[in-house]
Amino acid sequence: MTCTAPQGFRAAGVTAGLKQSGKPDVALVVNDGPRFDAAGVFTSNRVKAAPVRWCEALFGADQGPGAQLSAVILNSGGANACTGAEGYQDTVATAEHVGSVLSLPASRVAVASTGLIGMRLPMDLLLTGVGEAHRALSAEGGPEAAVAIMTTDTVPKTVVVPGPGFTVGGMAKGAGMLAPGLATMLVVLTTDAVADGATLDTALRRATRVSFDRLDSDGAMSTNDTVLLLASGASGTEASTEQLTAAVTRACTDLAEQLLADAEGATKEIRIEVRGAATEDGAVEVGRSVARNNLVKTAFFGQDPNWGRILAAVGTVGPHVEFDADAIDVTLNGVQICRAGGTGDDRDLVDLTGRQAHVIIDLHAGTETATVLTNDLSHAYVHENSAYST
Amino acid sequence: MTCTAPQGFRAAGVTAGLKQSGKPDVALVVNDGPRFDAAGVFTSNRVKAAPVRWCEALFGADQGPGAQLSAVILNSGGANACTGAEGYQDTVATAEHVGSVLSLPASRVAVASTGLIGMRLPMDLLLTGVGEAHRALSAEGGPEAAVAIMTTDTVPKTVVVPGPGFTVGGMAKGAGMLAPGLATMLVVLTTDAVADGATLDTALRRATRVSFDRLDSDGAMSTNDTVLLLASGASGTEASTEQLTAAVTRACTDLAEQLLADAEGATKEIRIEVRGAATEDGAVEVGRSVARNNLVKTAFFGQDPNWGRILAAVGTVGPHVEFDADAIDVTLNGVQICRAGGTGDDRDLVDLTGRQAHVIIDLHAGTETATVLTNDLSHAYVHENSAYST
Repeated sequence: MTCTAPQGFRAAGVTAGLKQSGKPDVALVVNDGPRFDAAGVFTSNRVKAAPVRWCEALFGADQGPGAQLSAVILNSGGANACTGAEGYQDTVATAEHVGSVLSLPASRVAVASTGLIGMRLPMDLLLTGVGEAHRALSAEGGPEAAVAIMTTDTVPKTVVVPGPGFTVGGMAKGAGMLAPGLATMLVVLTTDAVADGATLDTALRRATRVSFDRLDSDGAMSTNDTVLLLASGASGTEASTEQLTAAVTRACTDLAEQLLADAEGATKEIRIEVRGAATEDGAVEVGRSVARNNLVKTAFFGQDPNWGRILAAVGTVGPHVEFDADAIDVTLNGVQICRAGGTGDDRDLVDLTGRQAHVIIDLHAGTETATVLTNDLSHAYVHENSAYST
Repeated sequence: MTCTAPQGFRAAGVTAGLKQSGKPDVALVVNDGPRFDAAGVFTSNRVKAAPVRWCEALFGADQGPGAQLSAVILNSGGANACTGAEGYQDTVATAEHVGSVLSLPASRVAVASTGLIGMRLPMDLLLTGVGEAHRALSAEGGPEAAVAIMTTDTVPKTVVVPGPGFTVGGMAKGAGMLAPGLATMLVVLTTDAVADGATLDTALRRATRVSFDRLDSDGAMSTNDTVLLLASGASGTEASTEQLTAAVTRACTDLAEQLLADAEGATKEIRIEVRGAATEDGAVEVGRSVARNNLVKTAFFGQDPNWGRILAAVGTVGPHVEFDADAIDVTLNGVQICRAGGTGDDRDLVDLTGRQAHVIIDLHAGTETATVLTNDLSHAYVHENSAYST
């Protein structure tokens, strides 16, 4: 039931005609309260789409620690990025229209868009779709909403996590441009817990830091990434920061794994676990450097246990990350193929034929650890991304 | 004539059997003097191959400002990286063997290797090859040496630049792992100018900074990158720092363009010119961010003038680089497809069918400029790099 699993939410997904394919492209999620606390995190890309700028304004200049939101309107079929002042006006008009049909101020309406950059949205179609979505709103509408935000996704991504006396639900889209600082990725999380904006903000930032921020499918950060968490308070249960963080982290981690599994053209889901780091940030940096290395990614596609490329990628991180190249161990799917920076067990023992790959890089420089998720670089990735807009 | 174009140098390229293909794999370049001043720059990868560590030791802990070198021994067919203490001993033994056949101390012999990481070199074959290369040394041997350092290169890369009263010659190899901080790339430059180590060092660093350091084919930095400049003084002409910098820069730029043209699997040579930056470093950073973006690279492969992806890539640089996203112009092969951060001229006017692509990104934030060279991301790149070691 995704976004509508927690009490107090209705949703809908409809076809407005924004996509040439004729598939659903407009989703509306409404919080019926009694509370309207919300938190959000957005792309760190400095080229921000109009809806991201709008949302950031709703959350104040510093994006936190919360806002009052009653609805989220989302569209696929167009990112409304790099569309100038007119594009921003389109976002404002969309929020105003949602506000008008729901009898709310536009400032209670978040907007999220995904699709091609650099093209105006067909506003007549979109606003008609908003009306239709409003009429279709239902407490069972979560699954339809999750379908309407898909772009190159092959399956909708949804999650429901039970907490102590409350529920967290959510939906996500994203299959390309998956990278840190969030990835073209729209995520709406809902909960019926009672929690103020500051609590929601803390829980959401803690959760995204160890889930979406550690997913780096193709190193390309989007202009539109948005993760929203809306709380209706309808369960009547007050959630502590810890309880909420735990449930939201589970939801985000689950959705991140779903994004990884559906990444464009990928044949491998690669879990890069960095151990023995002096700091957690250093562990993440090493993991991301390996995740982004095209020679590592193509080696995985070729099922080639090329640990030399992994070490070369580790070596590109700056001197602020502690390690001695001659101390590094690398284990690939259970086989320690690199020991103390040199050849370890027989590379022929490594089986890379399956879809799941697990790399453990032990820096032997401390006790911190982090895991970064990525995909291989395949012919299908090149095909899909060389043909996307044409 | 490459390395042997300047007076005072002999070279050879022979087949030692390091490559399964049976192609030439050992090159020797000898400086017969009367002077032996030399400069070198090496990979900034923290995982350094044994020959890089050896060379850095020859140049002293700070890699500068020069050394006395009489010979360079190079091999393809094995990188001698991640091979531990034994691998380092192999490099030392190689330098010692070259020293012994040339009646020189090993400390006058630079070593460079390229090929697969993580495997010991077959030392018996290599040392036999050294003897053979010594016997084959000739003042016309430059072209054979350039062939013997090739790995996946399809053509040898050589250059001769005449200076005022002196000559600079050179050879390079490298077709993958091309990235800043130098790219798997071995370059030997020679000159018959009279110049001390400090002058050579200044000229070489100035030259590589604007040539090899701005070549970013696939974002993957190698463990073995080496650029050496040897001066015999045989012309008797003393070169000023400016004269030498000019000639060496021309040589490096020419070789960098040859590396770009022969990059693994590439169908495009993309020149990313960043204008209107507040600082030159900022311009380089923006150019590199675009050059490394897989969605930009696949779009070029698909001949898709997807300027939105270019803007999204620009947006990922840190806040220390000044620009306003709403001020950026992007011109692609002469057509200004993005104006003031939004849609500009008709994208259908852009012709991307040729091999050369020229992107101009005007940040309108200053007067500095820099050009970064890169390639597209093609099916052939994925194919070649997923199958390289297997």
